[in-house]
Amino acid sequence: MDKIAEARIEADPSLPLIRMARDFATTPERLFRAHTDPGLFAKWVGPDDTTTLIDHWDARTGGSWRYVSVVRGTEYGFHGCFHEVRPDRIVQTFTFEGEPEGVALETLWFEDLGDGRARLRSQSLVDSIESRDGILRSGMEVGINEGYAKLDGMLHDGTV
Amino acid sequence: MDKIAEARIEADPSLPLIRMARDFATTPERLFRAHTDPGLFAKWVGPDDTTTLIDHWDARTGGSWRYVSVVRGTEYGFHGCFHEVRPDRIVQTFTFEGEPEGVALETLWFEDLGDGRARLRSQSLVDSIESRDGILRSGMEVGINEGYAKLDGMLHDGTV
Repeated sequence: MDKIAEARIEADPSLPLIRMARDFATTPERLFRAHTDPGLFAKWVGPDDTTTLIDHWDARTGGSWRYVSVVRGTEYGFHGCFHEVRPDRIVQTFTFEGEPEGVALETLWFEDLGDGRARLRSQSLVDSIESRDGILRSGMEVGINEGYAKLDGMLHDGTV
Repeated sequence: MDKIAEARIEADPSLPLIRMARDFATTPERLFRAHTDPGLFAKWVGPDDTTTLIDHWDARTGGSWRYVSVVRGTEYGFHGCFHEVRPDRIVQTFTFEGEPEGVALETLWFEDLGDGRARLRSQSLVDSIESRDGILRSGMEVGINEGYAKLDGMLHDGTV
């Protein structure tokens, strides 16, 4: 399996914003499908030791979503609404239910790099530098990198 | 009619965030209703020369909304999704369709001040200082102050 690149994750130097970029050996269309089809999304999102159960999923502009991640018997809930779902961009809100007052505004872009490669870019916007740094300290990069490695495999074996 | 206070609108000194606060001679419950009942909301929101037509309105967690403001025959569309709707807080997204790539994450809080007074606090979060300053330069305070003056009247005469 080709590993295109590790995810690049960085905080903006002055804004409460985290940016991420990751290349995949696929098309933007398949990458979009991996993020909008609930059965596919549940298979790859999160760390290797996590099972994701979709509670609610309506991936269209004005829809909403909720899923539960199960790690060694403990459940962690996440939910939000889809502000916009279009082939090149998804804008959605995101709350981890363990910190119910916190809300992030997330944007994902699906870009065609040609030659069967596509770039996923994302940003996560919160309302304080402290919240941004708390997310960075939470170990998010483990789940992101393990999740995208699973997605690499699903793209390679034709699951997506 | 009692005028409690003008709206206080200010940019955060370093974040892409605009904060607003306004007191009303009412309860948090009625203030919440004025922001969630589409028929009431359409009557007060926006400048005096604007007519608001609700296209879609589902003010519950995971719902969405769209309205059109008509000013001297020209229509301006706005839409978003409701991340959370609860009696003390609404979190929603906001896009002015004249700038469809722009998205704000808005939070409204309804606070009880006692003695039949309530405070509305809100914040609007965007992803750049330039966007924040563009919103501030757009003349937003005219629509906000004229809208809240209409809401004062509706609270006074029992419409809400």
